[in-house]
Amino acid sequence: MRVTEEGKNDTEAIVTKELPLTIILNNQESVTLLCSPPKLKYLAIGFLSSEGLIKSKDENKKIRVDERRGTVRVETEKEFGSKLPSKRFIASSGGKETTFYSAIAGVSQSGRNGVSAPEVFALVEKFVQRSQVFKTTGGVHSAALCDAKSILVFSEDIGRHNAIDKIFGECILKDIPTDDRIIITSGRVSSEILLKVAKRNIPILISKSAPTNLGVKLAADLGVTLIGFVRGKSMNVYTNGWRVVPIEDSRCYN
Amino acid sequence: MRVTEEGKNDTEAIVTKELPLTIILNNQESVTLLCSPPKLKYLAIGFLSSEGLIKSKDENKKIRVDERRGTVRVETEKEFGSKLPSKRFIASSGGKETTFYSAIAGVSQSGRNGVSAPEVFALVEKFVQRSQVFKTTGGVHSAALCDAKSILVFSEDIGRHNAIDKIFGECILKDIPTDDRIIITSGRVSSEILLKVAKRNIPILISKSAPTNLGVKLAADLGVTLIGFVRGKSMNVYTNGWRVVPIEDSRCYN
Repeated sequence: MRVTEEGKNDTEAIVTKELPLTIILNNQESVTLLCSPPKLKYLAIGFLSSEGLIKSKDENKKIRVDERRGTVRVETEKEFGSKLPSKRFIASSGGKETTFYSAIAGVSQSGRNGVSAPEVFALVEKFVQRSQVFKTTGGVHSAALCDAKSILVFSEDIGRHNAIDKIFGECILKDIPTDDRIIITSGRVSSEILLKVAKRNIPILISKSAPTNLGVKLAADLGVTLIGFVRGKSMNVYTNGWRVVPIEDSRCYN
Repeated sequence: MRVTEEGKNDTEAIVTKELPLTIILNNQESVTLLCSPPKLKYLAIGFLSSEGLIKSKDENKKIRVDERRGTVRVETEKEFGSKLPSKRFIASSGGKETTFYSAIAGVSQSGRNGVSAPEVFALVEKFVQRSQVFKTTGGVHSAALCDAKSILVFSEDIGRHNAIDKIFGECILKDIPTDDRIIITSGRVSSEILLKVAKRNIPILISKSAPTNLGVKLAADLGVTLIGFVRGKSMNVYTNGWRVVPIEDSRCYN
């Protein structure tokens, strides 16, 4: 029902779908995520990879998605025993063990990859155009893996964390390298988002929204170039600004 | 650094603070939330109440906040034993046990409380004016407890869930009744948000953003009037629209 000061009218609204998805690793329930239905296989693999439980495609013996029941069963060769986190329930914006914090060495500084301001503005414009579900329902986040010129992998989910995990799950299963690439997210950059990205050795993180102070601190510590508030032809570069050059000619991109 | 196509400029940006807060219930670590610093005591009590671990102020023997260490210690008279959820780490937008779903009877239908469209528009306008932190940093969510005329309790947090838990924690500690009142949130209404609100017997939930399909379904099942996408003088009423009347004269508010 649409209500204005003039009156009420029945109307149709498209509403984004929310699915509780239980990830079962080696016959043990490891987590229940609230998420959006597309790419559940990628979400499961990306989540397990973010948690440090899966590293490569080869470790997976079998992945079975049952969307009706809301489960993804993953079987791996590795035995986890007590390393497996106990059953948890995680909201649409994710959550993780505190041990995650200690596991990151920082992004490689050796590559000379950078990005120019016009490239960032063009990438974000393409990113917004792709965000169709958000346009119709107003209820999801988007994420993308890019190089300086184009979007390579794109995903949407009601959870900021899930959208990024879907990207990394797809990269693992399709052998798409993430090193030295760029992540764009529609959502806020909290410490957890920054860590997910730094863990994959990705040097540039672009957000349409704001970062938190912990997000900025970790980006500085881990060598990530953190760009936020990209609006039209303007952006804030919070950390490691040496990777960003104003005009295209002057950038040092390989 | 602010970057446009014209060039780079050093600039100062205000960034929202993100704090890992560990809630220790009866000397046992129960959860770590990523949250914003204000009202940590209310957040802890609200969270424990949402989890069904605390019901009233009288149960609390002692609450000690240590912001520097990021802890809130709560001591209660009740012994929980194995009922206490094991140590978890929860992202800025929350998370909970699946058992939560079964514990709600639905909002009382007996009260005749409703709200008129002009009242909703006026409440949301006041709500937006109060959201100062968001205005300066762009990084937090707001929540408010209201009656049809005014905002009674207001809170902000980087997490949607935390902002609402802070409201309920403050209500518990200050003996502010929540029955038959209104909650406004800046964030999306997922199933978890809807359940938090319905659990407190609150019949009207207003969001500036979109609901998910599970949020809408639960609102319908539990008798909650769910209002979304309030923009200026227009809004969507998804469920139980009988509580909303277009003009003030015709409303049946006690």
